[in-house]
Amino acid sequence: MSENSPHAWWQRSDLCYQDQQLYFAGQNVKQLANRFGTPSFVYSSKRIKANLQRIRDALDNAGLAGRSSIYYAMKANRFAPLLRFLKQTGLCGIDACSPNEVKHAVSCGFLPSDISFTATSLSKKDFIELGHYDGLFMDCDSLHSIRSWGEMKPGSEIGIRINPAVGISRACNEKLQYAGCGTTKFGIYYEQFEQALALAEQYDLVVKKIHFHTGCGYLTSELKQLDHVFSECMKFVNLAPDVTRINIGGGLGVPHLAEDQALDLEQWSAVLNRHFGQGDMHIEVEPGDYICKDAGILLLGKTFVEQKRDTLFVGVDAGFNIAPEPAYYGLPFQPVPLIHDDSPLIETTVVGNINEALDVWYVNAMMPENLQQHDYLALINAGAYSSSMASNHCMRGEFSEFLLD
Amino acid sequence: MSENSPHAWWQRSDLCYQDQQLYFAGQNVKQLANRFGTPSFVYSSKRIKANLQRIRDALDNAGLAGRSSIYYAMKANRFAPLLRFLKQTGLCGIDACSPNEVKHAVSCGFLPSDISFTATSLSKKDFIELGHYDGLFMDCDSLHSIRSWGEMKPGSEIGIRINPAVGISRACNEKLQYAGCGTTKFGIYYEQFEQALALAEQYDLVVKKIHFHTGCGYLTSELKQLDHVFSECMKFVNLAPDVTRINIGGGLGVPHLAEDQALDLEQWSAVLNRHFGQGDMHIEVEPGDYICKDAGILLLGKTFVEQKRDTLFVGVDAGFNIAPEPAYYGLPFQPVPLIHDDSPLIETTVVGNINEALDVWYVNAMMPENLQQHDYLALINAGAYSSSMASNHCMRGEFSEFLLD
Repeated sequence: MSENSPHAWWQRSDLCYQDQQLYFAGQNVKQLANRFGTPSFVYSSKRIKANLQRIRDALDNAGLAGRSSIYYAMKANRFAPLLRFLKQTGLCGIDACSPNEVKHAVSCGFLPSDISFTATSLSKKDFIELGHYDGLFMDCDSLHSIRSWGEMKPGSEIGIRINPAVGISRACNEKLQYAGCGTTKFGIYYEQFEQALALAEQYDLVVKKIHFHTGCGYLTSELKQLDHVFSECMKFVNLAPDVTRINIGGGLGVPHLAEDQALDLEQWSAVLNRHFGQGDMHIEVEPGDYICKDAGILLLGKTFVEQKRDTLFVGVDAGFNIAPEPAYYGLPFQPVPLIHDDSPLIETTVVGNINEALDVWYVNAMMPENLQQHDYLALINAGAYSSSMASNHCMRGEFSEFLLD
Repeated sequence: MSENSPHAWWQRSDLCYQDQQLYFAGQNVKQLANRFGTPSFVYSSKRIKANLQRIRDALDNAGLAGRSSIYYAMKANRFAPLLRFLKQTGLCGIDACSPNEVKHAVSCGFLPSDISFTATSLSKKDFIELGHYDGLFMDCDSLHSIRSWGEMKPGSEIGIRINPAVGISRACNEKLQYAGCGTTKFGIYYEQFEQALALAEQYDLVVKKIHFHTGCGYLTSELKQLDHVFSECMKFVNLAPDVTRINIGGGLGVPHLAEDQALDLEQWSAVLNRHFGQGDMHIEVEPGDYICKDAGILLLGKTFVEQKRDTLFVGVDAGFNIAPEPAYYGLPFQPVPLIHDDSPLIETTVVGNINEALDVWYVNAMMPENLQQHDYLALINAGAYSSSMASNHCMRGEFSEFLLD
């Protein structure tokens, strides 16, 4: 029952009720909705910067000041003003995974040398396009990729994405597992690693970086798994004498549910420090979710409130197609009323406007009984893997995006 | 092992190997791929028309000649040339679910009176836009919808989408269940139906149609469930004296796997005949998948073939974002080589170019051992709920579409 109480789990200083009104990034959310219309994604640049800074500080606290870098995983959210803002902070480069992402990052002010490129199943056409960006750093995730890049850029420095065959899994979500539990397409396994090094040598490629990414959305409870992943990955690093950089991928998560324990960055720092604090390896991290997810809310217009059999449905004016994470991965976005008065809370199911059974935003959302008087709802945690994955399914793909100063 | 043998389950006269080359709609598929590039969706207008005609014949065989209509569910595929072609066949109207779909159908030559409109969670703005189309037939799926339409169009004829609380479920796929097993947002349940009729009367709305849609992708093995759904729905029809039309929704499926038994339209006819053959009800049906799914293939460029630990991966140049059905619903698209010579078949896993764990096209696909010599693959059954649900995730959203004469 605490999810939308005055002290709901998701409230924080820049996202909370003041005088019964929801405020986000210092702005009255109802006024934003009136001004911007719905559906609209609204992002807080201040929160984005704070999230970035928090990771920067944690890296420094891990003894990695001066030898660590953050690459923002732009697949999480590529809204151009947001990318331009990130560039201006000076706190991060870009993790890109397709030639068009590289082009877009460059159009938003990043230099090719700001970009760490890690992709899978690249075509000949992809390699040719990527070859035009001098300074782009390529992480090869297959023998095929080493061969193709080697033919184009013999003698260059590369990274190798490895697959340690152990992963980070949260709540057994196999859809978010990139390593462990069955062979995946990602990276080069230990069994093929010596072959990969030999192949690189054949093209005079210098393997300067080991890259891995083994799971998404990890919180404090998964840090033991991260620790184990780091240990396994060092087996690869130890075989590659030219390696000076280790990219630990992304995966840092944010709470989706009241019972989720936020990622404790002090403990995260401690894990990093234990493995990388000594020595002189440069450590790279590629967060996406952690930077943007809780810095974005999705403003929705309420369409109806109606009892159907045993369920009180609350309808809104957009569906899973513009923010597919709940449908794809079962990661719900908490719906939040914009006004919080003394109205008692009742159980509802919040649904979208798509003619599909999986178009359910949230089951058992506690909403004020006087919801008839509300024009809007907000979904929190909608800043990442939402608009960037949106489709025009049912021709319901229209939405707006705004970055607040 | 039979999936890609010379007599593979999916072969038919217009999609088969001739002299070891794959032909689709009378065209050499490799030549199509060379000409169109990849990724490309290619649709066969002949197959689309044949699928439509088969349903038309089945309705006639059910004793429904002259009193039955087909409305193509355009959410399945809204490619404009395809919609224009459908209009030219004269065999169907349109099932639309959003104002933009209505606009698009009209732009492709359909009249508002050709359109059956059934949607969920409509906003005030939606109702106003829809109100501009004289002749559009509105199926109300909630009390809210009856009220809103009644205020705008008092005295008009409407349909009511009901929810019979029993559904059609294939292989326990709860993501495709629209009724049964838990309350859904769709339609008006029996418990609220008298209230719905009273509300309609209040606005002088005449309830001429009962609409229901209870599941997707049903085949012959689900016809017993369909039979039961029809029985349950007649309880609603019997309470609504002005009803002259019954819309049985869509849901007619096509085989996805070798073990799937195709939908036997003779048996389908028999079920329709048993319930509706007598009397003078006009029967409407809204197929989407059945019209387009097996009339479309997705041409993909092969990017790499590589053993990773215990798995032979075959990479292609597009991922789940341009055809999300396998990822959303676990409905796989059989990958098919364009050349079928004497090369033995081996087990592979076909994967796309998106940096996500769920970007797997097909596990255990039997492919020719000499796949190194192949430039392309085709995915069959890609004609519906693919391009229409595509996103630009990872900025990998580029593809082409072609309708073959």
